[in-house]
Amino acid sequence: MEATILPFLATEILIPVAAVVGIVFALAQWLLVSKVKLTPGKTGSSKDGVSDFLIEEEEGLNDHNVVVKCAEIQNAISEGKNLLIWASGFRATSFLFTEYQYVGIFMVAFAVLIFLFLGSVEGFSTKSQPCTYGKDKYCKPALANAVFSTVAFLLGAITSLVSGFLGMKIATYANARTTLEARKGVGKAFITAFRSGAVMGFLLAANGLVVLYIAINLFKLYYGDDWEGLFESITGYGLGGSSMALFGRVGGGIYTKAADVGADLVGKVERNIPEDDPRNPAVIADNVGDNVGDIAGMGSDLFGSYAESSCAALVVASISSFGVNLDFTAMCYPLLISSMGIIVCLITTLFATDFFEIKAVEEIEPALKKQLIISTALMTIGIAIVTWVALPSSFTIFNFGEQKQVKNWQLFFCVAIGLWAGLVIGFVTEYYTSNAYSPVQDVADSCRTGAATNVIFGLALGYKSVIIPIFAIAISIFVSFSLAAMYGIAVAALGMLSTIATGLAIDAYGPISDNAGGIAEMAGMSHRIRERTDALDAAGNTTAAIGKGFAIGSAALVSLALFGAFVSRAAISTVDVLTPKVFIGLIVGAMLPYWFSAMTMKSVGSAALKMVEEVRRQFNNIPGIMEGTARPDYATCVKISTDASIKEMIPPGALVMLTPLIVGTFFGVETLSGVLAGSLVSGVQIAISASNTGGAWDNAKKYIEVSSCTIGSGAGASEHARTLGPKGSDPHKAAVIGDTIGDPLKDTSGPSLNILIKLMAVESLVFAPFFATHGGLLFKIFN
Amino acid sequence: MEATILPFLATEILIPVAAVVGIVFALAQWLLVSKVKLTPGKTGSSKDGVSDFLIEEEEGLNDHNVVVKCAEIQNAISEGKNLLIWASGFRATSFLFTEYQYVGIFMVAFAVLIFLFLGSVEGFSTKSQPCTYGKDKYCKPALANAVFSTVAFLLGAITSLVSGFLGMKIATYANARTTLEARKGVGKAFITAFRSGAVMGFLLAANGLVVLYIAINLFKLYYGDDWEGLFESITGYGLGGSSMALFGRVGGGIYTKAADVGADLVGKVERNIPEDDPRNPAVIADNVGDNVGDIAGMGSDLFGSYAESSCAALVVASISSFGVNLDFTAMCYPLLISSMGIIVCLITTLFATDFFEIKAVEEIEPALKKQLIISTALMTIGIAIVTWVALPSSFTIFNFGEQKQVKNWQLFFCVAIGLWAGLVIGFVTEYYTSNAYSPVQDVADSCRTGAATNVIFGLALGYKSVIIPIFAIAISIFVSFSLAAMYGIAVAALGMLSTIATGLAIDAYGPISDNAGGIAEMAGMSHRIRERTDALDAAGNTTAAIGKGFAIGSAALVSLALFGAFVSRAAISTVDVLTPKVFIGLIVGAMLPYWFSAMTMKSVGSAALKMVEEVRRQFNNIPGIMEGTARPDYATCVKISTDASIKEMIPPGALVMLTPLIVGTFFGVETLSGVLAGSLVSGVQIAISASNTGGAWDNAKKYIEVSSCTIGSGAGASEHARTLGPKGSDPHKAAVIGDTIGDPLKDTSGPSLNILIKLMAVESLVFAPFFATHGGLLFKIFN
Repeated sequence: MEATILPFLATEILIPVAAVVGIVFALAQWLLVSKVKLTPGKTGSSKDGVSDFLIEEEEGLNDHNVVVKCAEIQNAISEGKNLLIWASGFRATSFLFTEYQYVGIFMVAFAVLIFLFLGSVEGFSTKSQPCTYGKDKYCKPALANAVFSTVAFLLGAITSLVSGFLGMKIATYANARTTLEARKGVGKAFITAFRSGAVMGFLLAANGLVVLYIAINLFKLYYGDDWEGLFESITGYGLGGSSMALFGRVGGGIYTKAADVGADLVGKVERNIPEDDPRNPAVIADNVGDNVGDIAGMGSDLFGSYAESSCAALVVASISSFGVNLDFTAMCYPLLISSMGIIVCLITTLFATDFFEIKAVEEIEPALKKQLIISTALMTIGIAIVTWVALPSSFTIFNFGEQKQVKNWQLFFCVAIGLWAGLVIGFVTEYYTSNAYSPVQDVADSCRTGAATNVIFGLALGYKSVIIPIFAIAISIFVSFSLAAMYGIAVAALGMLSTIATGLAIDAYGPISDNAGGIAEMAGMSHRIRERTDALDAAGNTTAAIGKGFAIGSAALVSLALFGAFVSRAAISTVDVLTPKVFIGLIVGAMLPYWFSAMTMKSVGSAALKMVEEVRRQFNNIPGIMEGTARPDYATCVKISTDASIKEMIPPGALVMLTPLIVGTFFGVETLSGVLAGSLVSGVQIAISASNTGGAWDNAKKYIEVSSCTIGSGAGASEHARTLGPKGSDPHKAAVIGDTIGDPLKDTSGPSLNILIKLMAVESLVFAPFFATHGGLLFKIFN
Repeated sequence: MEATILPFLATEILIPVAAVVGIVFALAQWLLVSKVKLTPGKTGSSKDGVSDFLIEEEEGLNDHNVVVKCAEIQNAISEGKNLLIWASGFRATSFLFTEYQYVGIFMVAFAVLIFLFLGSVEGFSTKSQPCTYGKDKYCKPALANAVFSTVAFLLGAITSLVSGFLGMKIATYANARTTLEARKGVGKAFITAFRSGAVMGFLLAANGLVVLYIAINLFKLYYGDDWEGLFESITGYGLGGSSMALFGRVGGGIYTKAADVGADLVGKVERNIPEDDPRNPAVIADNVGDNVGDIAGMGSDLFGSYAESSCAALVVASISSFGVNLDFTAMCYPLLISSMGIIVCLITTLFATDFFEIKAVEEIEPALKKQLIISTALMTIGIAIVTWVALPSSFTIFNFGEQKQVKNWQLFFCVAIGLWAGLVIGFVTEYYTSNAYSPVQDVADSCRTGAATNVIFGLALGYKSVIIPIFAIAISIFVSFSLAAMYGIAVAALGMLSTIATGLAIDAYGPISDNAGGIAEMAGMSHRIRERTDALDAAGNTTAAIGKGFAIGSAALVSLALFGAFVSRAAISTVDVLTPKVFIGLIVGAMLPYWFSAMTMKSVGSAALKMVEEVRRQFNNIPGIMEGTARPDYATCVKISTDASIKEMIPPGALVMLTPLIVGTFFGVETLSGVLAGSLVSGVQIAISASNTGGAWDNAKKYIEVSSCTIGSGAGASEHARTLGPKGSDPHKAAVIGDTIGDPLKDTSGPSLNILIKLMAVESLVFAPFFATHGGLLFKIFN
């Protein structure tokens, strides 16, 4: 086998350099955002600040007051997420602090579990053992794998937590600044929100890369040439990242939607006060939730995918010719793709913030979509370059017991098809959830005959929206699977995730704009400012849906890659549906997403009911809330969301974490393979349909609402929309019901399924040696 | 191999005798029902009629008038289903006649397709060919298989149509008679409704058996000892039965729910008039729909399952030792099980109609449930007897290329586990859909906070209700698969369907009672009578849900059995998920139920919108409707349902019928295997959850409504329910929205999925020789 163009040393330098560039870029963006001052009097502190001020003046309100009020609300939201307290004279630890206590306990417990299970494979022996794939060589003992897997798990978990925490920090930091910038014009506000999103995106991508890179190099000091053991241990990194995503997505999803549904049911429906009105006691919990669920949740989800697909690729590569021949550059192909991704996304970001300027509301959505197209186009070239320099022209890939001959251009196609499939899924998602197109308009139209037809049409839309994404995923799978077996799938997933920094920037932009709007409303800013932030938010809704599409699509590919890696590691060569063991796994696996969704939806429902009762109680018992003379007790509402999310997270979390352990231990690896395949093919459908149904209902409602505004979000205020509106009309009420139903679907149960399918797969992969050795107890007893 | 206890001749006599007994019993029940006269003055024509009359007198209305009015409405509903017409001076062909025209065209076209595809396998050669499984023997030419498969297809289709038609006839015949009997007491009405259901059940079971039996014997005259070819051709019977079920379930489902949703949205929600009020122009269409969808649809669905599982068992048996040794009695094991089923169900029916008497409303539901338990218990003994006399003590079963050694008691367990799994699924379904238990009560409670929480809780309930049925199905599959390979699965499905006569009787009882209530309302009968028919109906709702559970459970087993038979016939020995061809099939297959549901739900939605507009138009434009002085134009509403169901049936029908043909032809048998497995494991979940969600919403609504009635259906009128009611309260309005959303879920898209998974499997089975020979064009081009 010939050598790669890129030498070993260059690889060792390029990867950390790319990561550092990403981090520096993120910090630079943060610095730019922080130049918007929340202290009164210094608003125009950027060099052209004063002239900006002339563009558009704030009307109707004293400037000083607005800035102070913004800062106040900003602090309230930040506190919700940090350690501090609210009102009421007692100290309540707030959400993340509480969550992290539980996360800490879980991390320690699960780390011990990993160590015990993997250590027991060879009875905690410290002796070296024959390698699984190279029988003539000796590999490090199973006990070492247990130790290093545990360490990798902790590294992945902590990286995920830190990235999520930083993302939330910057998001809450940016909310009020975006609102203030909105006074100067929509373009300024857009740049502030987008830059803040970029901080999160780049930090996460770069951190994920650099920690993985350091871990590999440190582990190599011990493992030496035993790359089989080295990269098996590294899979713990994916498990760590993904298990934190469980807390982020499920816990965060329950938190945010309990608050949102609760706030809407009483505020909008019963009391007829606007969204984000400060008189609503649940309004702060709702705003906190947007950050907890959409920023930290989405971030940890995508970080998990990214870590897992890298690990899946690495573990397969380690038993292919890359690993066998100790070709470090080729081995690092997944990391080099990610490095290139950071550089490509950096250039792409400049298109939004520096090369062009947003001048009107209508330009926001195209600008965001352009980000996706530019990054995808540039990345295609990037992939070609990386493939050319980092891979030998021909090599072999492990394919369930055999070595398959692969050429480097074939891997290019694998990565590129994943990348482009992501774009297709994104745009199909947009088509089905944006109110600029007929599907959502039809749903809005069905509100004429009431909530029932709205729900029927919305569910049908969600089901229908599954078709093209599934074909896109199927084609990517077929091509990459055919070209380069499971390694092909893993790098296809990496391809889809290679533009993660841009994807996350766009995605985080949504909740930041949403909260900026909330702050504008709460600070009592003028109608015009609120309309600007609404326009930012409307574009954010669509891009959030696109982001969810990406997250699901990549989760599907990632979990298939992990499944493949698991099967390889468990030394199974076929997973035959025509055996009873596999088939029952398949059908039970296909059931799990339903069980899981039932839990998460019920959790949101129960928590929302509690919230409704509390909000009603406050409205009835605290005199002066509705008149704005008394301050509602926000803290109790925050506590309800916090408690609910911690408590209700346990059953679905246990289902995900215990299923692979129970199935693997008692039924063995064949049944577990069936379960993984079943939950993958079934879960991805529910996840897509739930997200899109929810997104469509949300935008159908907005479509009707826009008709009563003076400015619309592009296609909004059409003749058709006007016949359905205005706010408060019967069709609008029906649309609000749909929107409320959609909330848990699109923000809790739908996205949580990503975690279900990925986490079960990566857990199976990590525990594969144990299951292969000691698993299938039940069948052993009966036979 | 030793001989069976039951000799050849006895088998040849016993099967037709059992079938004839079933038919005679059905006719006897019909005769008993027909003794209730609709002509005035002769009401008490049964021998104790006059004394009955004394038990409970009809109050408030002239007896003569009521009978005449009942007869009038009876005719109106019957006409809707027969050839006659309505008002308006022009002749409109009514639903079934119109449907049968399309069915006729479809049948001829598809018969030609079968002939062409199967004939082309050996290029329409008339020469004998070596057998697939016994290479030393010569079998009949492929052309003969093409001809006989086509004939079997037509036989299956016609038997299904005739059974469905007769079922509807007796159902409409029984509606008004049940209403009239309700005047004499709830016991009499129950017996009338139940007997009518039994007519349908026994006719269908017996017809299905006898036609299959005759076909086998006639085909044998040509095929002689070539049983491989003989039973391959017989599979056409299953395809015929199942493709008619497509029309019944999908077309009927769209018909009934377009009318129901349309009638409810305007009548109940907007105009605030009761259900079944004759002032509602869509009321006749709604009543016609109950029969079209629930009676004919359910009948054709279960007939399809029954025919298919028999065919799947026979085709596997023909290449096992039964077929190889030409052991006719053992070969006929599936038919003997069904024969025993008829006898067992006959005895069971007597428990409801003759051995015990219903005296109070509370006894109805237990009596119906007892039917299930008794028939299951008796059938277990029946299976043991049949297994003992009809099977050799040891034999071999074809298992994907090998012969597996099986003992007769092992087959007993296969059939029995299917039978008992059906009972478990039935009772779990009841638990989740009856308002006597907490799940539905929780859903009702969530109506307090509005329609949104009702929908969220209802969806979560449906998802949760999947868990136990899937475990029941998985265990049945594991046991029967392990014991007797695919033959085991097929006979497990037959076991579940062996009590089909009782199952259908209970099931058909539901819509009959529902319509009886409708007639009571329309005829303006007293409140007391209406309460009795309501009680009958409430019990019917629960049993209908149980029936749907059975239908789905059996569909899952049947389609797995057919899948196994397909795989055997296509000569595939493994379906490995770890190959790209299979995996893309799996994920696309798992998507198909969503695509299909999107189509059927959208169809119901659009048709309902049309219906709403028409009903509104009539209320606005025809003066005097609301006052009852003018007659609404029922005919136009019937026409809207008819047209919608015919037109909207085409896209989902095409999806089901074309998918196997396209995938098989272009992608080959491996991908098709993946598609079948994927759609099975994914479809069964959606089918169960959709049915149960819908059923739960329906009964949550009833739970709230009962609180405003004087008598309840058992647990109905609790303190809890009273806090939610009465009719017209806000929680009740929220419950009505849920009920309306549930209608298409539980009666259209959910049950239609049974057809999707079965029909694709049986079609693949029939066309397997073609796909195996000429399929996979696309891959052939690329390779």
